[in-house]
Amino acid sequence: MVVTFTDFGLSGPYLGQMRAAIWRQAPTVPVIDLFADVPVFDARAGAYLLAAYAPEFPAGTVFLCVVDPGVGGAREPIMVRADGRWFVGPGNGLLSQVAARASGAEAWRIDWRPAQLSASFHGRDLFAPVAARLALGEMPPGTRLPLAEVVGEWPADWPTVIYIDHYGNAMTGLRESALAPDAKLLVDGQVLSRVRTFSDAAQGAAFWYVNANGLIEIAVNQGRAAEALRLAVGDPVKVVDR
Amino acid sequence: MVVTFTDFGLSGPYLGQMRAAIWRQAPTVPVIDLFADVPVFDARAGAYLLAAYAPEFPAGTVFLCVVDPGVGGAREPIMVRADGRWFVGPGNGLLSQVAARASGAEAWRIDWRPAQLSASFHGRDLFAPVAARLALGEMPPGTRLPLAEVVGEWPADWPTVIYIDHYGNAMTGLRESALAPDAKLLVDGQVLSRVRTFSDAAQGAAFWYVNANGLIEIAVNQGRAAEALRLAVGDPVKVVDR
Amino acid sequence: MVVTFTDFGLSGPYLGQMRAAIWRQAPTVPVIDLFADVPVFDARAGAYLLAAYAPEFPAGTVFLCVVDPGVGGAREPIMVRADGRWFVGPGNGLLSQVAARASGAEAWRIDWRPAQLSASFHGRDLFAPVAARLALGEMPPGTRLPLAEVVGEWPADWPTVIYIDHYGNAMTGLRESALAPDAKLLVDGQVLSRVRTFSDAAQGAAFWYVNANGLIEIAVNQGRAAEALRLAVGDPVKVVDR
Repeated sequence: MVVTFTDFGLSGPYLGQMRAAIWRQAPTVPVIDLFADVPVFDARAGAYLLAAYAPEFPAGTVFLCVVDPGVGGAREPIMVRADGRWFVGPGNGLLSQVAARASGAEAWRIDWRPAQLSASFHGRDLFAPVAARLALGEMPPGTRLPLAEVVGEWPADWPTVIYIDHYGNAMTGLRESALAPDAKLLVDGQVLSRVRTFSDAAQGAAFWYVNANGLIEIAVNQGRAAEALRLAVGDPVKVVDR
Repeated sequence: MVVTFTDFGLSGPYLGQMRAAIWRQAPTVPVIDLFADVPVFDARAGAYLLAAYAPEFPAGTVFLCVVDPGVGGAREPIMVRADGRWFVGPGNGLLSQVAARASGAEAWRIDWRPAQLSASFHGRDLFAPVAARLALGEMPPGTRLPLAEVVGEWPADWPTVIYIDHYGNAMTGLRESALAPDAKLLVDGQVLSRVRTFSDAAQGAAFWYVNANGLIEIAVNQGRAAEALRLAVGDPVKVVDR
Repeated sequence: MVVTFTDFGLSGPYLGQMRAAIWRQAPTVPVIDLFADVPVFDARAGAYLLAAYAPEFPAGTVFLCVVDPGVGGAREPIMVRADGRWFVGPGNGLLSQVAARASGAEAWRIDWRPAQLSASFHGRDLFAPVAARLALGEMPPGTRLPLAEVVGEWPADWPTVIYIDHYGNAMTGLRESALAPDAKLLVDGQVLSRVRTFSDAAQGAAFWYVNANGLIEIAVNQGRAAEALRLAVGDPVKVVDR
């Protein structure tokens, strides 16, 4: 299976063009769109989202990851094998956290190039064909990279809003293990406590909880946390213990 | 076939995660996304939409229905067989109208639970695997429920705006049979008459018509009714006969 | 393969209903959504988008094209075979540019009608079944049309904004061949020069470039051209040579 993880948006042709490119190479491989709206150009937010959402997929899954503001420039295309899953994408930090968290990981620079490579859409022209070949069990030509170069310097947990979902819930780059169960978050002047899930909070009350993929998330029961607490992607999250 | 009907939005990971959960259980079953943007948390609007859009699918179709603000709380997960179609979802009224309108219907509380059940995402953890098994012809463990309990007390037709589409058209919870052909609707101070379809109205004129799924819909020819008539989901629709 | 090209939006049921209609007729044919957000009711913008994005698909692909404000009125449903690809849609100009640019093209009025034809959703009731049959290698009944009637009078290149993408980039109806490499575009009082791709411009700088499908596109490196240059679909694009 190929899983797409991009900042393309659902609108426009890009996701469909990439699906067509996969299909031409690997027509029998199923494709699932996981995220099409990673915050635009934000490889760092993408890195923490990807690391939280990849583990529920089985070994052998190929993640086609495109958040690529430097396309056509100096950044390298890379592939990473981490705990039996494959990740293909630009070497701009997007794959750093899946590499960092894996109990076993290897990385390669992708040396293969297509006959025609556009200057602005490597998702279609380069990453999709590579992902398709990996899904078929083939390994495109590559050069081993030191894992440390892919992992980089970002912290294991990142106290920052990385995504606002359709309901207005704000996901952070923090995992359950990063906070004590009785920790409080200070957000927009409000001190938030942990609850188990939405229906355990009063209607309209703000809280934090551990979402279904292990991320600390700021939410309001039957309300929109992003608006109620004026949260946006990139906002720092302050942990207080009092 | 599994048909998804949710308030997840198209953005974010939830629809993809649910598709992956179906695929793990039933990789050969096709999945079609019918609605991903049922008004958020609005099980009642969802109930009338679902009842209007389900009948065009053949017997044997399994509808995976998740509009579930009470997830993790007291509401029961249920399954309904209505006129040969299956419906899986929360017991919060979402399945009430498909049950009410069926010439033959049965209902069960779902007794099966997965090994791991998150507190906030039963769409992925519980409803998707149940839908996948039903699509494979298996019946997960359940306890029969009185149909009247699922049907509840909501009226057969609901004079309320239940959905605003991409073009700004406003669908209501009224069916063609609920109105006389020469009935008028009073909306935002304007009296609207019925036309057959868009091109029968003057450009920019507001009207009501029966949409391709039998619902009374308020529209403007080549314009946006929601803005022109200041309509939002939940607005009552007034029928006048004059 | 069937490729959808519509102004339905991704929200709402229409795309799913059309996919279900294809599936009922041709369950083994893959479907890819290329554009679901062609500017609403804008068959002319759609015509130039379609002609730019169709050629990357192989011969035999069937394009199901629905931008159809005149549905239920006098416009004819048509099918066009152009350079080995099939195009199905309303005869309102949407298919004009793929017909005009083909080295070999033929056109037919579609004479087939379904048993039940709604007045407002020919995408589901008429165009989808026709596309499905073409994808299966069957030819629905039709009457040959003069190609000139389908091609019409619109110019080969159209100096107008035809689409704003998820990143705020503005695609135009101009192809690379329409401009000299050193041509300038005058947009919102700014004179824009050509660059190869995003990373060749300074961050925040506006420019024009040739996108991955050969269209002249106005963009800002890591910014949103539509907002920065106040561009909207339908805006004329002025070419200056100085």
